[in-house]
Amino acid sequence: MELGAQLVTVGREILTGRILDTNSRYVAQKLNFLGIPLMRIAVVDDNVDDIAQELTQAFSRPMSIIITLGGLGPTFDDITLEGVAKACNRQLVLNQQAREMVKSKYSWFLNQGAVDHDRLTPEREKMAWLPEGATPLPNSVGAAPGVSLVHQGKTVFSLPGVPAEMEAIFEQSVQPQLAGLVGRRVFLEESLLSGCKDESVLAPLIKEVMAQLAGIYIKSCANLYTPEENLRIVVTAVGDDKRETQVRLQTTLEILRNALKIS
Amino acid sequence: MELGAQLVTVGREILTGRILDTNSRYVAQKLNFLGIPLMRIAVVDDNVDDIAQELTQAFSRPMSIIITLGGLGPTFDDITLEGVAKACNRQLVLNQQAREMVKSKYSWFLNQGAVDHDRLTPEREKMAWLPEGATPLPNSVGAAPGVSLVHQGKTVFSLPGVPAEMEAIFEQSVQPQLAGLVGRRVFLEESLLSGCKDESVLAPLIKEVMAQLAGIYIKSCANLYTPEENLRIVVTAVGDDKRETQVRLQTTLEILRNALKIS
Repeated sequence: MELGAQLVTVGREILTGRILDTNSRYVAQKLNFLGIPLMRIAVVDDNVDDIAQELTQAFSRPMSIIITLGGLGPTFDDITLEGVAKACNRQLVLNQQAREMVKSKYSWFLNQGAVDHDRLTPEREKMAWLPEGATPLPNSVGAAPGVSLVHQGKTVFSLPGVPAEMEAIFEQSVQPQLAGLVGRRVFLEESLLSGCKDESVLAPLIKEVMAQLAGIYIKSCANLYTPEENLRIVVTAVGDDKRETQVRLQTTLEILRNALKIS
Repeated sequence: MELGAQLVTVGREILTGRILDTNSRYVAQKLNFLGIPLMRIAVVDDNVDDIAQELTQAFSRPMSIIITLGGLGPTFDDITLEGVAKACNRQLVLNQQAREMVKSKYSWFLNQGAVDHDRLTPEREKMAWLPEGATPLPNSVGAAPGVSLVHQGKTVFSLPGVPAEMEAIFEQSVQPQLAGLVGRRVFLEESLLSGCKDESVLAPLIKEVMAQLAGIYIKSCANLYTPEENLRIVVTAVGDDKRETQVRLQTTLEILRNALKIS
C-alpha cells in the first residue's frame, strides 16, 4: 500500500457549475503540506451507484487514504454514506455516539435561535446512520458529524460539503490522524521566476535538469504568450530527512538559476 | 448512448492545490446552459497511464461526450494526447493542419515580441502531434491547437489548460458542435429563497414535492445554521419543448411557494 490519497467529491451543484469546488483545493493544499501525494479527484453526482462505484475503484488502487466531501446532510440526495456502505459491503447502522452529537448540536442551535425546535426528527437522525464499524468525527460548526472508517487497510474519511464544517472537522480530527500516518516525511516546494517568456524554450531545459536529479519535480506554469511574460517554475522535493531534502531542493534551484542565467 | 458529458482534467498543479480548477466550472456551466448533463469530473496527474485509464473508463460509460482539459503544451509533462491516443489504441501522428496552426502562431508571437524566434523546434512541433484521425481546433489565443476526435461513436474534445485559451477554443469550436448535438433540448433553472433556516425542515418537503413531479430536480443549498439564514432552493427542469418545460418549472415553484407559505 502506498502513502497517497484520493478525493471523491459528491454533489450535483458542482457538476452543474453552480458551485466552484473550493473544498477539493483546500484538501489538496493540506495534503500537499503534509507530504501526502493526492493522486486523483473525482466529482460524482448525488447517486448511490456512482458514489459506490467510485469508492470501489478507489479501494482497488494502491493509495491508502480516501476522502469523500459532501452529501452528509439531511436531504434525500445526501447519500454519500450509503455509497460508502455499499462499496464496503456494510450496513448503515444508527451510531449512538453520532446520534448524541447530532442531538446536542440541535439543542445548541435552538439556544442560538438557528432552529425552531430540537426534536430528533428522521431527517436529523439520518445524519447519525453510519456504515457499520465507522467512527463519528465531531463537527464543531454544523450538524452532520464527519466519519472515519478503516476498510481493507485503507482509511476513509467522509466530510460534509459546507466549507466551514469540512474545514473544522479536517483540522480537528483528520489532520492529526494523517500527520500520524505520515511520520517524519518532508515536503518542500519553492518557485522562481525564469526570466523567460516562452514555455517552449523552457521545456528542453527543464527536461534536462529533471534527468540529472532524482526525487525532484520541476514544473513550469503555462501562461499566455506576451512580451512581458516572466514564467514561473515550481520545484518540489519530497524526502524523509529535512536537511537532505532542503539541500536537494536548493541544489536544483541553483542548477536552474545557472542554466537560466538568473541571480 | 446517452446525451451526457464527462470531464477529465489533467494536471498536478490542481492535485497539489497550487491552482484552483476554475476550468472545470467554466465547462460545467457551459454544458448546463446547453442542457447537456455533466455526469463526472476526474482530475488526474500528468501521467500517461492515469490519463489513458480514465479515458478507457469514460469510453465504457454510456455518455456521448468526453472533454479533457490541460496537458497540450510543449513541456515533458504535457502528455494528455499520448493518454488519449493510448486509450483509443491509435498512434500520435504529425498533423499537417495542426503544424501550420502552430507555425503561424509562433510567427505571430514573434511579431508581437512574445517570443524571440519562430523556428519550429521539437517542443513547438510536439503540439501538432495528434491521435490519428483527430481534427485540430484553432487556438486564437495560444500556441497549442485544441483537438476533436470521434472514437466508438463518442466525441472527445481536448483543450489546453490556460483558461483564456481553453475558453477561446470552447466558444469558437466546441460550443457550436455541442449545440448541434443537443438540438432543441431545453434546460431551465430557477431558484427561490425558502424563508427557512433549517435544512432538516426543508428536507421532507422537498422529498414530497419531488415525488409528485417528473422531470424536475429540487435541491436545497446547504449552509451554516444561523438565526439569519434563509436557505435557497434551486429547481431545474429539462425537456424537449420550451413552453412545456417552462410550465413544468413554474408549476413546481408555485407548489414550493405554497408549501413554504411564501409569496
